[in-house]
Order: sequence, then structure tokens, then C-alpha cells
Amino acid sequence: MTDKFNVFSMLTEFYEIKTADGFFNSPSRDTIAYFDLFFRKVPDRGGFAVMAGLSQVIEYLKNIKFSEEDIEFLRGKGVSESFLEYLKDFKFTCDVWAVPEGTPIFPNEPVVKVRGPVVQAQLIETALLMLINQQSLIATKANRLVRAAHGTVVAEYGTRRAQGTSQAVYGARAAYIGGCSMTSGLVPEMEFGIPCVSTMIHSWVQMFDSEYEAFCEYAKRYPDECSVVVDTYDTIRSGIPNAIKAFDNVLLPMGKRPKSVRIDSGDITYLSKRARKMLDEAGYPDCDIMASNSLDEYLIGDMVSQGAKVDCFIVGERLITSASSPLFSGVYKLCAVEKDGKVIPKINLSENVSKITIPSSKSVYRLFDMNSGKAIADVLTLDGETVDETKPYTLFDPDFTWKRKDVESFVVRPLLVKIFENGKCVYDEPSLEEIREYCSEQIDTLWDEVKRFENPHKYYVDLSKELWRVRNQLIEEYKGVVK
Amino acid sequence: MTDKFNVFSMLTEFYEIKTADGFFNSPSRDTIAYFDLFFRKVPDRGGFAVMAGLSQVIEYLKNIKFSEEDIEFLRGKGVSESFLEYLKDFKFTCDVWAVPEGTPIFPNEPVVKVRGPVVQAQLIETALLMLINQQSLIATKANRLVRAAHGTVVAEYGTRRAQGTSQAVYGARAAYIGGCSMTSGLVPEMEFGIPCVSTMIHSWVQMFDSEYEAFCEYAKRYPDECSVVVDTYDTIRSGIPNAIKAFDNVLLPMGKRPKSVRIDSGDITYLSKRARKMLDEAGYPDCDIMASNSLDEYLIGDMVSQGAKVDCFIVGERLITSASSPLFSGVYKLCAVEKDGKVIPKINLSENVSKITIPSSKSVYRLFDMNSGKAIADVLTLDGETVDETKPYTLFDPDFTWKRKDVESFVVRPLLVKIFENGKCVYDEPSLEEIREYCSEQIDTLWDEVKRFENPHKYYVDLSKELWRVRNQLIEEYKGVVK
Repeated sequence: MTDKFNVFSMLTEFYEIKTADGFFNSPSRDTIAYFDLFFRKVPDRGGFAVMAGLSQVIEYLKNIKFSEEDIEFLRGKGVSESFLEYLKDFKFTCDVWAVPEGTPIFPNEPVVKVRGPVVQAQLIETALLMLINQQSLIATKANRLVRAAHGTVVAEYGTRRAQGTSQAVYGARAAYIGGCSMTSGLVPEMEFGIPCVSTMIHSWVQMFDSEYEAFCEYAKRYPDECSVVVDTYDTIRSGIPNAIKAFDNVLLPMGKRPKSVRIDSGDITYLSKRARKMLDEAGYPDCDIMASNSLDEYLIGDMVSQGAKVDCFIVGERLITSASSPLFSGVYKLCAVEKDGKVIPKINLSENVSKITIPSSKSVYRLFDMNSGKAIADVLTLDGETVDETKPYTLFDPDFTWKRKDVESFVVRPLLVKIFENGKCVYDEPSLEEIREYCSEQIDTLWDEVKRFENPHKYYVDLSKELWRVRNQLIEEYKGVVK
Repeated sequence: MTDKFNVFSMLTEFYEIKTADGFFNSPSRDTIAYFDLFFRKVPDRGGFAVMAGLSQVIEYLKNIKFSEEDIEFLRGKGVSESFLEYLKDFKFTCDVWAVPEGTPIFPNEPVVKVRGPVVQAQLIETALLMLINQQSLIATKANRLVRAAHGTVVAEYGTRRAQGTSQAVYGARAAYIGGCSMTSGLVPEMEFGIPCVSTMIHSWVQMFDSEYEAFCEYAKRYPDECSVVVDTYDTIRSGIPNAIKAFDNVLLPMGKRPKSVRIDSGDITYLSKRARKMLDEAGYPDCDIMASNSLDEYLIGDMVSQGAKVDCFIVGERLITSASSPLFSGVYKLCAVEKDGKVIPKINLSENVSKITIPSSKSVYRLFDMNSGKAIADVLTLDGETVDETKPYTLFDPDFTWKRKDVESFVVRPLLVKIFENGKCVYDEPSLEEIREYCSEQIDTLWDEVKRFENPHKYYVDLSKELWRVRNQLIEEYKGVVK
């Protein structure tokens, strides 16, 4: 199966090409445009999301090209000859800023910002959205699982239920960023160095005449990583006793210790406590108990609160698809154009208030409390505006402007980092390990109220007075006199 | 971005390799095993699913190979040298049967069946599951949307929200099998010939000084496919009037007709009726109205029942992720081995009744009523058993065996078709168009009661007496004397 589908240049939607073609053949051709990529809703009604997928965006933007075959296909779809010529020698020249991977992000703030010729900035929409949506979704979900597990290790085991090969691999990457410790997939280790681990499959047990024989054979074959699945017939009456017998009779004489038992069905809280006791009494307090079976953050949280004796939660389908909330709502919207060197803000009003965009070229600042180190709010400003750390700052709700809050003693950090300058990558990418660690640190800057699952505190994402004014003026302008 | 990830040979989980390695170095090495791939639950609590993904399974099985790099990586993971040698010259020799793509399928019946050396049959588990899960999920969802639309065209527009490139492309394929008529993606047309279409993006409107100017420019540029988005500022007060004015002033003088308007927000039922009236009165009854905005089968059904004037439903994120039910619950289980030429049935009991498997090598028959042509039931039998069409047949519920039903005047069709024989593909694959048409025909054989969304009739998937006996005997055997 050859890969045509990781060449993102063509992995776009026809209307991107058509719109870019249209711009190319219009007076807008050389117009410099600004686009924001932002998302609208946190999955699972959570308090924040985790940014991921930037590394793949960078790889994509570095490698945009259209083959002869692509050009020929587009010719058949009616794309103009002049634009086909342009695509043939496509050269990316935009500026791109982005929020680094692993950063907690909030609705409506730009997490990627593109400035460049409108033709190019338009063309890359679909791939950018797909890549950021794909991984931010899973990183966000993974972090929920990790938070629910309260320090117990969470492993990603989703390949078989992933929505395609790409998600099997990049989903594992995103899960690792979000805090998972390992994966069942080989490619994520080959590609990104994510620790790939293994357990016993039921078919191994079924292949032998008895469970005990199956365990003994496995212990002989894998004495250093003897991990057995104990629920094929009956966890307490058969699985655990047979495991202990096999450890006693095969492993111990080899001078080895067992690694773990896995429970894949039944009442895991109850079974894990029973199993723990049996293993301890048999002299195997060091043998871990792994739990699997359609787990999610609520089941894990429940087990933890009931004192389940689980050392590793294995999460498959509900992580790799983010099953309870499988959409990341990233969108990519034109927010300004340059005309005679000046930035002209643009807005999309739409029929739904929630779809009204925030116009103009913007900066995003995060304010941290100087004493606690906790994040207080994000502030979007017009580009060039700053937030002065030396003075109190008044936050206000952009919809209900009488809701105000004065903050002082804070430090300010700009969230958007320059990634491409005039089409050249200028970003020094951190390693995946660094991203994972940074993610954990940054999530520590959030108040517990933002991190909880039920009714999380709505973190402030506010506009500067100037930006608020520009936005309101545009709304008035369009809603007053519709052109 | 090079493709390492469509080479499914390595896109597996470590425990598949490890288990296969274990079998290879055990007395089971040459054992012939039977595995069933079946699913447990219909997504969205529907009455049936749609089989898809077989074509990619075939491509995978034809091309399994392990590169030097793969072998080296596996060596580092502790795989035995003898097994690495085996992988280096891997030759697939299994028999494979499958239910053809587009067939309605039901829980617990084998939709793929593999017979061959246990080492091989084990090794392919993850890829088979992922490929069938991935596409059956989307084909099933697409068919729900198409049924809800009651004859109105449904278009797949999901690339930007797809969980990765692979799903953007294969999801579009599956959506087409399930009955969607077109896609927004270029690659699905390049690769599979699925009609790829385009509409106008909001940024086109925003780039111009006024909506009217934007529409005029588009009409000039694309007179033969003038399709405009009308909700950027205000659908009824601005979008539709400006569209009509642009059609009047630009298209008509060129001797052209408009293609469509697209409504992407607001109360689409209401807006579409208003827009229809305005367009008709302006002399454009042939201008279609397309609707988008997070649609699903329930919203579509609602709009249809309220008389919305929509000619095409554009469905994005909720189709390509099957958002309301994003998991296809395929599993792959050992069901028998051969010993001295005899088939020995194998069972997995588990702690959950719903996870207990159906043992032995099986056939699957679908019974159709001779008069209505409607499907009555599926019957699983031991391999070799047949269902005699000339005699009445007694169906019985495998759990509640006193629930019986006698059927007569039926025709019987085996569902499993031979795909590979001794590792050689012997299946003449239908074209995608043929699959799509077959799917539609086969779904017509289902009673409306099976097809409805709310409380669908539970279609019978029953066991032959012989198979039931074998299963019960194994359960008794293991539950009586746990070994």
C-alpha cells in the first residue's frame, strides 16, 4: 500500500484550490492576508484543551509540492492554466506563528496565525485544520485520562480501533504529549521513540490445552517480561491461581520475577483487590496489575476513588477516537488584509452569534499570577499592543462588558511563537520528551477549578479594549448597513 | 511527509508480534488455526451495520513484508532470531473468507474468517481490525444520513475534521459505499473516482469590499458552476438579494444559470424556505439550495419532515468521525484449531457474558423470504452444515431457546465469500460503483423495522442446533471444571 495520502499538498478540499485559483486570477492576487486557526469548544465540556500537531504542520509546510500527476488531475477539474503554472513551482512564503505543542489552549484564541499572500494562506487551510484537530483532540483526551488516574500509569492501546493508520500513529504521539506513558503500537516507537509495550493476548491462552500450560509456556519463553492475561475463563478461580502456580513452578526456579497480570473484563475494582491479595500472599507483591476493557476517564476515576489495586490503566478505543467527544472544532478564518501597508480587519458575522469571528491581526498574552505562578487569563490584543506588567490590568468579559476584574502582580508571556518567516522555518523544535514535560508543567499552572471534569471554571479569554472596539465597530457597520 | 504508515505490516501492536513469535517457538508452530472477525454492537444503537474496508484488507494481505529496518527494530525489541528469519521471507499462506463490501451485517456473525498457520493468522489481527473498523463505521453512518435525507443528495465534506489523512480518504470511500453522492476531497476522486465537488468559502466573500462584489467576481470567474455562500453577513437581507443581483447582472448576460446557494448557519429550515421563494420569484427555480453546519441524521430528518427546501445536505465532521458513535466494535478471536485433521472448537469465556465467543469453524447463511425478497434471519452453522431451502426451518434464540420461529418459502445465501486460498487472492473485486449499488440493493432487502433509528427490530442472528450444542458444551466444560 503506497502512500499517496501523507502527501498533504493534495490532501485538501476542492474548494481550497478553487478559491485560491479564484484569488490568483482576481485583483486580490497579491493581497497579504491574515488567517487565524482557533477552536470553538473544548471536547467533553472540559476547561481547556492541549495544543498538538504543530510538528506535522511544520513538516507539511516545508514540503508542499504538486506532482505532474496532481497538476494533470487539477487540469481535468477545470483549474486555470495560470494557476497550474503557479502550483507547479509552488514556493511557500508566508509567516506563521503558533502556540507550542503541549500548551493548554482555550476557545476563540488563535493557536496558529498565518500571514502571507492570500492565495497561499488559503491553500493550506484544510491540511492545517486536519493536523491540529487530529492531535489536539487526542492530547486533550489523554490528559483527562492521566488526570483521572491520579499518578497511576496510563497506556495507549488503540491501534485496532483507530480511525485509520494515520490516527493510530499520530494519535499515539498526541496521547504521549498529553501524558500517557506508553503505547501498544510499533510504529510510534520506531517513529517517535514512544515506549512500546506488550501484554498477553487471549488467543495465547486458548491455543493451549489448559490455562496453566499456556502460562507456563509463556513464562519459559518470556521469563524477563512475564505478563499474563487472567480473565480468559475465570479471573479468581482460574486465572490468578494458575498464574501463581506458573510463577512458582517456572519463573522462580529460573531466578525470575513476574511482571504483571492483566484483567480485561468483569468488575475490575473488585477483581483487582482480590487479585492483589492473592498475589501478595503468594509472595508476589511486586507483580503489577494492569486493567483494560473500554476504560475512560470516568471509569478510571471511579476505580481510583474506590481503591482499585491497579498499577496501569490500558486505554484503547475511547482514547484513540476520543469516543465521548470525537471532534476538535478547529476553524481557520480570514481576520485581516493589508492594504497600502495598513492592516484592514475582516469579520465573518454568520447567522449564529457563536460563529462571529474576532477580526484583525492579533497577539495572544497569558497572564500568570506572580505569587502562585497560576495562569489568570489570556488576553487577545491588536498586533503591536502590549500588556504592561508594571501596572494593574482590567480584564472584562467581551460579551458582558460590565463583568470586570482588576489584576496586578502578574507576569505576561506571549503565546504565539514565530515558526516560519517568509516561508523559512525559524523554529527550533523541541523533542517529544520535552514537549511532554512542558505540557505537564504548563497544566500545573492551571487552577484545579479549570482542570476538573464537571462544570470547570471558564478560564478568561478576553480582548483588549482596542480589539474589542475594532470588533464591535465592524459588527455595527455590517449589521447597520448590510452591503 | 513520506509514508511509513500505510505499510501495514508494521502498523501492528507489539503483542501481535510477540504472540506470533511465541507460537513460532512453541509446539503450536504449525498448528492450523481459525479466527473470526466480528463486531459486537451496531453504532448509534442502529439495526444493522454496513460492511466496508475489505478492499484495503486485500491490498494489505497481498503486500505483507518486513524491511531490513523493520527487522532491525524488532531485533532491538527482543524478538527471536528464528522468528526474524521467518519474517524476513514472510509468505502469506492463509485462507480468507469475507462478507462482500456493502452488505448489511449484524453483531456476532463472522464477517471475515481466517484459516491458516496460527503464527500468520495472529500476526494480521491488528491491521484487519483497523481496516474493517475504520470503513464499516463510516459506511454505516453514511447510510443513516442517506436514509434520513429521503432521496435528497448527501455530500461528504469531512477532510478538515477527519481523524487523520487515512480517514479523510478511506472515510470518503466508505461514505460513498454507504450512499453519499460526492466528496469535498481531491484524493478520493483521484484514488477512487468519487465525484469531488466544491462550494464557495466565506473568506472569498470577506476578501472583497462587499458581498455583492464577491459574488460578481465569482460569477465571472466560474460562470458554469456558480455556487455562492449566502450567510456571511445576513442570509435573507444580504446574501440572497446579492446573489440574485449578481446572477441577474453577471451570469444572465453571459447566457449562464446559477448552480446553487449555500446556507451554513441559522435556522436552515426557515431560511431555506425563504430563500427558495426569493429565488423562485427572481426566476431561479433551478438554483439549488445546499445546507451545511454540523448536520447529522437527526437534524436532516427533522428538516426533511418540516419541508426544508434543501437540494443537498453537506455533512462534515459528524460523518467523517461518526461523531455520535465513533467506534466500530470489531474483534478478532480464535475459534478453532485443527488437530490430526479434526477441527477442535475454542472458546473465550471472559468475565462478561457479552464477551463469550462462538466457537468452531462456521458458515453464515442469510435467509430471504421467497415472496417479499426480504431478509428473515442469519444463521450461523458449523462448517459443512447447510440450511435446506426445501423444508421449513426452525429459528431459535441462542440465549432464550424457547423463543422459536418456523420459517418456510425462503431462499438461502451464504454470506462468506472466498477471498484468499492458500495465500493467493481468488476474489474478483467489484468496482466501487458496483459496491455502492449492491449496498443500496441489499439494504432494500431489510424490513423498515430494522432500518429505523429508534428501537429498531433486532434482526435474528441465530445458531444452528449443532453449533449451539458445541458452544454450550464448551461453556459447561470450562465453567464446570475450570482448568
